[in-house]
Amino acid sequence: MAKEKKLVEAITSMDVDFAQWYTDVVKKAELIDYSSVRGCMIIKAYGYAIWELIQKDLDRRFKETGHENVYMPLFIPESLLQKEKDHVEGFAPEVAWVTHGGQEKLAERLCVRPTSETLFCEFYSNNIQSYRDLPKLYNQWCSVVRWEKTTRPFLRSLEFLWQEGHTAHATHEEAQEETIRMLNVYADFCENVLAIPMVKGKKTEKEKFAGAQSTYTIESLMHDGKALQSGTTHNFGDGFAKAFEIQYTDKENKLQYVHQTSWGMTTRLIGAVIMVHGDDSGLVLPPAIAPVEVVIVPIMQHKEGVLEKAAELKGRLEKASRVRVDDSDKSPGWKFAEHEMKGVPVRLEIGPKDIEANQAVLVRRDTGEKSIVSLDGIEASVEELLGAIQKNLLEKARAHRDSHTYIAKDMAEFTRILEETPGFIKAMWCGDQACEDEIKEKTSATARCMPFEQERVSDTCVCCGKAAQKMVYWGKSY
Amino acid sequence: MAKEKKLVEAITSMDVDFAQWYTDVVKKAELIDYSSVRGCMIIKAYGYAIWELIQKDLDRRFKETGHENVYMPLFIPESLLQKEKDHVEGFAPEVAWVTHGGQEKLAERLCVRPTSETLFCEFYSNNIQSYRDLPKLYNQWCSVVRWEKTTRPFLRSLEFLWQEGHTAHATHEEAQEETIRMLNVYADFCENVLAIPMVKGKKTEKEKFAGAQSTYTIESLMHDGKALQSGTTHNFGDGFAKAFEIQYTDKENKLQYVHQTSWGMTTRLIGAVIMVHGDDSGLVLPPAIAPVEVVIVPIMQHKEGVLEKAAELKGRLEKASRVRVDDSDKSPGWKFAEHEMKGVPVRLEIGPKDIEANQAVLVRRDTGEKSIVSLDGIEASVEELLGAIQKNLLEKARAHRDSHTYIAKDMAEFTRILEETPGFIKAMWCGDQACEDEIKEKTSATARCMPFEQERVSDTCVCCGKAAQKMVYWGKSY
Repeated sequence: MAKEKKLVEAITSMDVDFAQWYTDVVKKAELIDYSSVRGCMIIKAYGYAIWELIQKDLDRRFKETGHENVYMPLFIPESLLQKEKDHVEGFAPEVAWVTHGGQEKLAERLCVRPTSETLFCEFYSNNIQSYRDLPKLYNQWCSVVRWEKTTRPFLRSLEFLWQEGHTAHATHEEAQEETIRMLNVYADFCENVLAIPMVKGKKTEKEKFAGAQSTYTIESLMHDGKALQSGTTHNFGDGFAKAFEIQYTDKENKLQYVHQTSWGMTTRLIGAVIMVHGDDSGLVLPPAIAPVEVVIVPIMQHKEGVLEKAAELKGRLEKASRVRVDDSDKSPGWKFAEHEMKGVPVRLEIGPKDIEANQAVLVRRDTGEKSIVSLDGIEASVEELLGAIQKNLLEKARAHRDSHTYIAKDMAEFTRILEETPGFIKAMWCGDQACEDEIKEKTSATARCMPFEQERVSDTCVCCGKAAQKMVYWGKSY
Repeated sequence: MAKEKKLVEAITSMDVDFAQWYTDVVKKAELIDYSSVRGCMIIKAYGYAIWELIQKDLDRRFKETGHENVYMPLFIPESLLQKEKDHVEGFAPEVAWVTHGGQEKLAERLCVRPTSETLFCEFYSNNIQSYRDLPKLYNQWCSVVRWEKTTRPFLRSLEFLWQEGHTAHATHEEAQEETIRMLNVYADFCENVLAIPMVKGKKTEKEKFAGAQSTYTIESLMHDGKALQSGTTHNFGDGFAKAFEIQYTDKENKLQYVHQTSWGMTTRLIGAVIMVHGDDSGLVLPPAIAPVEVVIVPIMQHKEGVLEKAAELKGRLEKASRVRVDDSDKSPGWKFAEHEMKGVPVRLEIGPKDIEANQAVLVRRDTGEKSIVSLDGIEASVEELLGAIQKNLLEKARAHRDSHTYIAKDMAEFTRILEETPGFIKAMWCGDQACEDEIKEKTSATARCMPFEQERVSDTCVCCGKAAQKMVYWGKSY
């Protein structure tokens, strides 16, 4: 009972303390647990099941766009990491170093991969000779380590799970096409599977990936008005190719450097789902990534026929959905709270009276709406409801984002918005990094991206007042 | 052309130099590549696709037996690794140590997980309170690192991919049931999916896992007569529970220690597939794990209608199988050799004359047999052929193993068999580790297992001549 009490205690309200609310949800929805390794999280079964559904859908999309999975070593020799100058500058300060193997001190330190560009480059330099070997379209599912000072579950941790795509192409144009193609795959996945709308755009020079020629990003807005970088794709041009001498013979028998890309999404997406859809009762999951889409809660389950009916309904519904019967000995009220906390999209209640009336009660997690439906054709009712929930979550998230996207024409406005109603700020920029630095210093907001869909919201840079070059989405971020 | 020549060069014959043949196959079948990190391999797309098929099938079996996937940290603090005495003695000499994070020296060294018992124990000690929390049935897919001195692709590498199941139970009996259940899941998978027959049994005290009360194993016999430990399951009793204080309150409200198990299989299985089924033309894959089950090779593909027919056949066959059309500009003979090297189970040849005759040529990789089949109902012909290949591979492997399993009654016989016709040796053992040590020293053979199916092949220990206790499978091993 002590344990039950602990769980039904209300979690912190998101409007009172969003950070605490987030921490409460990841713990009480049983997504993660802390370990004795600072900044490393344990992804519990329920959290990992969400990741598996994300993986499965993304992996299919990667394969449909011609990519194959491979596996590179966990370790990178220090000399290999150092081959591309910008890359090593960006990553060396935050890697974990292996210095001993067994009882021996290593002749050369190995870093635990923070990302695998250098390993793929070495592989490409050994495996690409001719234009016939191109393109190389690879992806890898693995964990990476970045020695962060402050960490938060899913959002920023020393170790996290991700996928990293790495491709090599004959021309700059092909690499650029790939970079945009995968950004679109990411955005489409986030909208249609995670029900999170994305702003697509290009990162500024200041914000781009270490070693990239250009970085593209999808940015989403969390419930508290902060932005979350949700996925990035990079066009490396031939920078890495020159550092690693990755050359091919073209059709005219001339040596050319390849053009490369990389792109990644991580378990951070689970953090986005929590912070975009969650509420004061806990997690709210889009059906597409819900480990349990429908939980059947038998009412007065000791009465004859109730558990049998629940099992029968499970059998019928699980042809199309992930369904569980909760026949534990907890009270129905307790079960309701627990499955709400875990964000199960649909609760189906079935008791003796319902059975008599040939009906069931369906309760939506997203709106709390109840409906009574006939058991005849309940498959269609549930399927329709799951579709409606998936759609509603995206619409709600879009409405929230749009109503929290503002225009600022000068720094006074910019600052006031961030203080009073945080969200995305659309503002013009002269293109000078000095202004970007100044904005960050004054407001702690950063340039999230230069969106593909440009608008001219004013004629002058929001910071310096000089002629405007680009409209930028600004925001405080995770 | 230089590249083509390199590939069609015959690989070393397996009977001339088995180790070299193995190395040739893993490279030329494009399974792996070496990296600049000693002992770490790059698993290339074709090799990884095999691993994905293995994962998918095993993962389904784990879930069907009630297990859920989780993810534990990559790192283990030195103090945590040291909690269970036998375990740390077994693993500490072969772990990689992280001593620095970013620019800082760590207060405590972290090892890169060689296996995750200690992490699961810490997790259990925080998450198990009552008998209601049991059993805990978890599995993890990840990579682990063991600092081996000599390495071979798939068979023994510094880093390898695996799954590790970790479970906690209320009683010793339940833990024992789980240990045997998962051994059976492993053996069944190996026989029916990898087409490799297994000997199931218990490890001797000398050969058991560091920290286990008892270890069970499935052992297979390679083409060269060496044994390969293919999967192990461990019953830990309450040893780890006592070291980590993992206790639960039973129904009588008394504190009890849990009983734990773990079990693992690795990418080593791919090595087993190579060494059991392969031949002098390269890899031979059982259809169940073949990334391409049927390769369609168009003959005279420039002739009108040939590529169209190949595409049509692909469309028809891929409803049931993994099918590829090889329409590259290489010669048919070159393609044949390449797909043989890669172990594709069925080659389908289709040319203008075949189209005219409404037929195709099917060639089996396992026997080389050709058959001409009608295009009407070719789906059934191919499916039947794939089934026959899967079955034949298992039968061939079983026949090879059985014909290379010998009985030895004394050390003279034992030594002679190992020298002349290496294989499994069934011989009686007194149960004394001194004899095990002596046999290893004299012959380098080890006790592979004490099989569940015991026979009394003689009355006295093969080594010391004292009263026999157990029949043991002995062999040289990888």
